[in-house]
Amino acid sequence: MRNTGIGEAEVTIREVGPRDGLQGERPLPTGERASLVLGLARAGCRRIEAASFVSEKAVPAMAGGGDVIRAAKAGFAAGEAPRARLTGLVPNLRGATAAIEAGCDELSVTVAASATYNEKNVRRTIEESVSEIAAICRQAADAALPVDAVVSCAFGSPYEGEEIAPVFVAELAARLVGHGCQAITLADTTGLANPPVLEQVVTALNSALPGADLGLHLHETRGTALLNAYVALELGVRRFDTALGGLGGSPFAQGAGGNLSTEDFVSFLESIGMTSGIDLAGILELAARLRLLVGHDIASKVRANP
Amino acid sequence: MRNTGIGEAEVTIREVGPRDGLQGERPLPTGERASLVLGLARAGCRRIEAASFVSEKAVPAMAGGGDVIRAAKAGFAAGEAPRARLTGLVPNLRGATAAIEAGCDELSVTVAASATYNEKNVRRTIEESVSEIAAICRQAADAALPVDAVVSCAFGSPYEGEEIAPVFVAELAARLVGHGCQAITLADTTGLANPPVLEQVVTALNSALPGADLGLHLHETRGTALLNAYVALELGVRRFDTALGGLGGSPFAQGAGGNLSTEDFVSFLESIGMTSGIDLAGILELAARLRLLVGHDIASKVRANP
Repeated sequence: MRNTGIGEAEVTIREVGPRDGLQGERPLPTGERASLVLGLARAGCRRIEAASFVSEKAVPAMAGGGDVIRAAKAGFAAGEAPRARLTGLVPNLRGATAAIEAGCDELSVTVAASATYNEKNVRRTIEESVSEIAAICRQAADAALPVDAVVSCAFGSPYEGEEIAPVFVAELAARLVGHGCQAITLADTTGLANPPVLEQVVTALNSALPGADLGLHLHETRGTALLNAYVALELGVRRFDTALGGLGGSPFAQGAGGNLSTEDFVSFLESIGMTSGIDLAGILELAARLRLLVGHDIASKVRANP
Repeated sequence: MRNTGIGEAEVTIREVGPRDGLQGERPLPTGERASLVLGLARAGCRRIEAASFVSEKAVPAMAGGGDVIRAAKAGFAAGEAPRARLTGLVPNLRGATAAIEAGCDELSVTVAASATYNEKNVRRTIEESVSEIAAICRQAADAALPVDAVVSCAFGSPYEGEEIAPVFVAELAARLVGHGCQAITLADTTGLANPPVLEQVVTALNSALPGADLGLHLHETRGTALLNAYVALELGVRRFDTALGGLGGSPFAQGAGGNLSTEDFVSFLESIGMTSGIDLAGILELAARLRLLVGHDIASKVRANP
């Protein structure tokens, strides 16, 4: 099953630092967040999850998402950075309306493959989430925007006794594509993926949706994000969500995760002769600035001027 | 070349926390270091690098290595923990004498595959280091102690322009075995290993020394330690050095490394159905205590009670 092609082709990275990375930090001004988006674009990131259109009460650090998108796009227009495709995470139709109005280039929606997690996280059944996503897809289609569906808990449930069958993940993904999602991103929400589980889920997905635009969103809960990314590369996956500094959750708090670090992943890809279009020196410089921005050390390992 | 056997057999871990982990920390009393050795043994570590017999002036944190070994062995004799095999790192004949007198069960010696690194690190040519190791092996043989040779920089040189040929690493290892070393441990001193390089070096070593007792000592400089350990497992390697908390060097300082974390590796092995004999809950509890012992957070990801 392996060796679909390490060493060939380019890897697509969607930088989720401004959204997944910053959402658990102390709230930063929208101007700082837009500057980060522009910095990422200057370092070669061509796809950036720049904002989340969730309730400001629920996630204060994501308040003003529309302003972030508008400021970043103004920066692109002024030639401050090469134009990147900006994604907005939307939890519902209202968020989708706001994201479309703000000028997002892609919408990102989520549903968990774990019924318990979905209910605890968004107080909906999986069916209710799928219906909402279908409605968002119709709205996005009217605006000619693509929708990426992130299936969380795709590699295991954090709830004891709940099994996540790979075929269930694949069927859920197929239904989302049927409703109009252009891409599927499988998220390892609590870091339960490992090589055999990854192979089962990716294989199930490839047979349910041959040729699908498949990405992975890997968390560091158990220190396995880069290892799982490598196994996924071996399985032929070519799209990954990563976050500057490995930010996301709180890497040093109990039970927390952190995302696959952009700089560690870019460094690894370079070491095995694969390319991402992201400049390692540029992204390392930005990571050094990120530490000052968030006010604490970060979990990524590769550093500028080692 | 892959799939020599993930999922079969047991993996041997040599816990190097009390030596490689603590050597860069503020000096701890020998009693605390012996307690750590006993705690590791209680958590199921059966091989522990417990002390270094280097100059106390050069590495103050390793002062009193003989006392650590003697106190740990007294603890074993008193039934405080199951008996573990204790390794002492020795840089020269004088260190070997001290390690043997202290009651070490194994000696560990090092030579770099990088001529520049060897000269900067121990002010010797590779040939001078090999001669010293040969003399140490003769002394160890008189005491009926096995010697493990750690070949540092085995996967690349940190010095620009210096190439480390896999066949050179294999020939160096073969000479060390010829001088009486019972085991070879390849060290990724500055985190330069990656899957293709690992495969080349392990393959070269296996053909120079078929059936050799081969281990890996992996550093986290680029966040790749666990990934490289997985690739090595696929290549059939079954022995690894790991350190509690991923200690070693200073994970949060510029250019620093950190070792493959014992608890993250044990957790990963469990997730893919391999065993190490180390109790995950026990080692996580010890890691939580390690943070208090060293007075700062640690880089490992898997935590107790997440």
